[in-house]
Amino acid sequence: MTKSILFSLTLVFITIACFAQDYYGNNRKQWLQKAEQYKPKLIITEKKPLKVVDIVPDTQSFQKYKAVDVSPIDSLYSMPFRLKKEITIDFGEHLTGYFSFSVRSTGLAADGPLRFKLTFGEVPSEVAVSFDSYKEGLSRAWLQDEVVSVMYVPQTVTLPRRLAFRYIKIELLGSSPYYDFNIHDMKCMAQTSAKNIPEELPQAVDPMIRKIDRVGLNTLKECMQTVYEDGPKRDQRLWIGDLYLEALGNNYSYKQYDLTKRCLYLLAGLSDLNGYLLATVIENPVPRAQDKQFLYEYALLYNVTLKDYLEATGDMETVKDLWPVAKKQLDIVRTNVKANGLMDFEKVKKDWWVFFDWKEDLYKEVPLQGVSIFALKESYKLAQLLGKEKEVADLPALTNKMIKAARKNLYNRKTGLFVGTGDKQISYASQIWMILSGVTSKAEGKKALSALTTTQDVCYPGTPYMYHYYIQSLIDCGMNLEAKEALVNYWGGMIAKGADTFWEAYDPTNDFISPYDFYPINSYCHAWSCTPVYFIRKYPEIFQK
Amino acid sequence: MTKSILFSLTLVFITIACFAQDYYGNNRKQWLQKAEQYKPKLIITEKKPLKVVDIVPDTQSFQKYKAVDVSPIDSLYSMPFRLKKEITIDFGEHLTGYFSFSVRSTGLAADGPLRFKLTFGEVPSEVAVSFDSYKEGLSRAWLQDEVVSVMYVPQTVTLPRRLAFRYIKIELLGSSPYYDFNIHDMKCMAQTSAKNIPEELPQAVDPMIRKIDRVGLNTLKECMQTVYEDGPKRDQRLWIGDLYLEALGNNYSYKQYDLTKRCLYLLAGLSDLNGYLLATVIENPVPRAQDKQFLYEYALLYNVTLKDYLEATGDMETVKDLWPVAKKQLDIVRTNVKANGLMDFEKVKKDWWVFFDWKEDLYKEVPLQGVSIFALKESYKLAQLLGKEKEVADLPALTNKMIKAARKNLYNRKTGLFVGTGDKQISYASQIWMILSGVTSKAEGKKALSALTTTQDVCYPGTPYMYHYYIQSLIDCGMNLEAKEALVNYWGGMIAKGADTFWEAYDPTNDFISPYDFYPINSYCHAWSCTPVYFIRKYPEIFQK
Repeated sequence: MTKSILFSLTLVFITIACFAQDYYGNNRKQWLQKAEQYKPKLIITEKKPLKVVDIVPDTQSFQKYKAVDVSPIDSLYSMPFRLKKEITIDFGEHLTGYFSFSVRSTGLAADGPLRFKLTFGEVPSEVAVSFDSYKEGLSRAWLQDEVVSVMYVPQTVTLPRRLAFRYIKIELLGSSPYYDFNIHDMKCMAQTSAKNIPEELPQAVDPMIRKIDRVGLNTLKECMQTVYEDGPKRDQRLWIGDLYLEALGNNYSYKQYDLTKRCLYLLAGLSDLNGYLLATVIENPVPRAQDKQFLYEYALLYNVTLKDYLEATGDMETVKDLWPVAKKQLDIVRTNVKANGLMDFEKVKKDWWVFFDWKEDLYKEVPLQGVSIFALKESYKLAQLLGKEKEVADLPALTNKMIKAARKNLYNRKTGLFVGTGDKQISYASQIWMILSGVTSKAEGKKALSALTTTQDVCYPGTPYMYHYYIQSLIDCGMNLEAKEALVNYWGGMIAKGADTFWEAYDPTNDFISPYDFYPINSYCHAWSCTPVYFIRKYPEIFQK
Repeated sequence: MTKSILFSLTLVFITIACFAQDYYGNNRKQWLQKAEQYKPKLIITEKKPLKVVDIVPDTQSFQKYKAVDVSPIDSLYSMPFRLKKEITIDFGEHLTGYFSFSVRSTGLAADGPLRFKLTFGEVPSEVAVSFDSYKEGLSRAWLQDEVVSVMYVPQTVTLPRRLAFRYIKIELLGSSPYYDFNIHDMKCMAQTSAKNIPEELPQAVDPMIRKIDRVGLNTLKECMQTVYEDGPKRDQRLWIGDLYLEALGNNYSYKQYDLTKRCLYLLAGLSDLNGYLLATVIENPVPRAQDKQFLYEYALLYNVTLKDYLEATGDMETVKDLWPVAKKQLDIVRTNVKANGLMDFEKVKKDWWVFFDWKEDLYKEVPLQGVSIFALKESYKLAQLLGKEKEVADLPALTNKMIKAARKNLYNRKTGLFVGTGDKQISYASQIWMILSGVTSKAEGKKALSALTTTQDVCYPGTPYMYHYYIQSLIDCGMNLEAKEALVNYWGGMIAKGADTFWEAYDPTNDFISPYDFYPINSYCHAWSCTPVYFIRKYPEIFQK
């Protein structure tokens, strides 16, 4: 970045600060300084590819492709490549970092440049299918194919882009007929800020649970960079929803609380001038929030994350410092709840992105009510821990009123299921959020969750993000066996399909599900799917027996 | 390049040196050191694009495309680019160097990466036609299209590849729908080792001659890098044939004799173990000759270049140092001449690449005889200048014998034209080399050259390289008017078609001529076409009147 741009950005910021009122005033600067102060050092590890593979069509495999071993990697290093033209290599694990390779002539002087296309895949299909058909919803530049000109040989080439991958397809697009060459010394300088070694699960634990835990730890580790990223391939940045679940996982594994602290400060420092949190922060080249990205429940989940952080660390100083932010987010509920205690769904939808899940047909009125109650309750607990309950003295009454409203307006006593006032869709999300918010009793929750499995046309979860809340709701209702079974079936299902890290989107019945209508752009190492780590370690009596 | 590769190369070299006899022994090391010592410093100049252009189809224009002005460059810098998607810019002149550009958001935080394709063209057609159809003869990687991922915004991107271009087409291949951006601050850090300012031609000189001279100087300047390159786009390296003509041009313009000296030393230092010169040298990552690239007349033209260098500089020390190389090259003629004084064309063809021109159908027996005699004569002159004629005492008799053999076997007295013994093709090349070698009298030469213009099925020159020798032969025969007319028609013809620098291949009747069956891979700034600079300035009485 040029100095002039930095200077312009600074000017814009100063201008805004001068003419608009900034809710947090001088706190903001100090919060950003603290975020910088707690920025973790990355651990760099040199990783080498293990073998040459073929990615072959296979109807039985995930997304209809599988990797088949061809030969050890050394076979490539001595192979004249000019007529070979294409090869795929396998690092044997998911990596996030900088890839480099070397080229050398097999004998004759290299008289002309080489041109390669390198395609990086977290899963086999990514290096097999064409990216050409992607109609941009997200930037096509997230897809990890790079074209490289190597203007002289021998040379070592390091791609300037940080990549997330296990497989690399190397295609030769240009070469001189006057010499042949080897590709050799391929490596990835892999990076993560996860430096602690999580405690091992006891040997006696079910092997599948151990596998799920291992893949969950890998997922979290790969997403732990200088922030908790949502995914190291895409979007490579901090989202509050991912932060919430990553911090949960971290609390029970790596226990690197400074990273959570950094993220909490970063989000606070980059909140909008009215004091509301933006859902996502981009770190490079200078940290800033994504404008206009107000995501309703993510702003509220910040408070829950802060409370969890306090419980895990006892760091009163930080949490008191950030308490004004949590307190302000409560206004999101206060200003959007109707007199009858129901959230004003139509109004919220106008001002906020209401997410909950990548599930286009999900009707979100009930989850909105649920997450709002959940956030108020957790925020009140936070206030109590800080001795600040007087500052939010309206919360208990407000919470009760909203619970009553939910029970009165959203609960079908006959079916035992919660449905909206505007749409009678029966969804997992609705039941889950009514349970997590304590609108239901344990028994009612159990009934609702059980009913889901025998009801037709249910809207089921589309992502591990929603599935996390499903597992939690099962546990909250005392459905421990079902919780374990669901966790093993869902996350174990990804492992059975070859996952090295857990995915952004997973539907056991559809390998090609994609929030972006193009499954190769999905993130296959996605933070919000790491939470088996949390469940397995928080509830050993359920998952380790 | 890694140290281990450098070490391996050194080992190979030492091994060869230990087990094979090296004709030049210890001289080689010292020659390479001197080549390094005279490596010129590059002059770097920041250049900015002038305007936005459209490259539009136009049947009247060179290669059926022309650049049409659209707007000043500033209009681009303030233009939101996301929906614009494609633009072409014009630097207004041919440049060789490193291109960079910056991107910045138009306002909203940039939340995703950008992907661009940048295509660099020396001529308009290069940025208009697709490169996909190129069937590799040379490396496709020479074609100057680069795909660039810009992982965060704002950012300044510098392409790692040195490029040669006037036009750049920028295509947006990927962007996020959540922000727009500007491209701005485009520049090229242009480089050349030409630092001297050649003398201006008098104002009274014919404007077309002045234009040709200016474009010739630009061509030479762009090719003057750390060696005399053949072309800064392709092959970016030193060939003896190009060196010969560039040094001629340099002697009458930039007068940077150290560059000639460096190239002479480099070629000597990298000659093969038997003492024969290889035709071409690649500088990076470590200087080395292209193996097996023995080009008959290029090896001999080294001697002529050395003689010209001595005449231009009086640098006896260098030329005496390199005299063993020139002396050894004479064996190429001695070992390939038959008892009757004719070159053994069939034998030479087996061991050497006989080039003369990019002209597939050219029959090369007569030019081979001619260039051999020419080289012997020039080498003898060199020996005389050094006082070494006793070391090559056989040359005068050998030369005479070969001239007589040519007149006896290759001359058709009736037509006044030279033709081969194996093929009766009438070519410019045959007449030209018989004249340059002094096989003909002036009158005979004039008759031959004149006859060419009225004879059917003549093989005419395919490149400015051959055309250089044509102009010289016209001058040598006293056909001054014809020389001027030919120079103006041929090189002026390129200017009329829009040339900023002179081209590798030019046929006034065919814009699509290509030695590689794909005209976009032609070099459009090619050293061997710079020699109008030499003619105009060496022969002011012909060209400046």
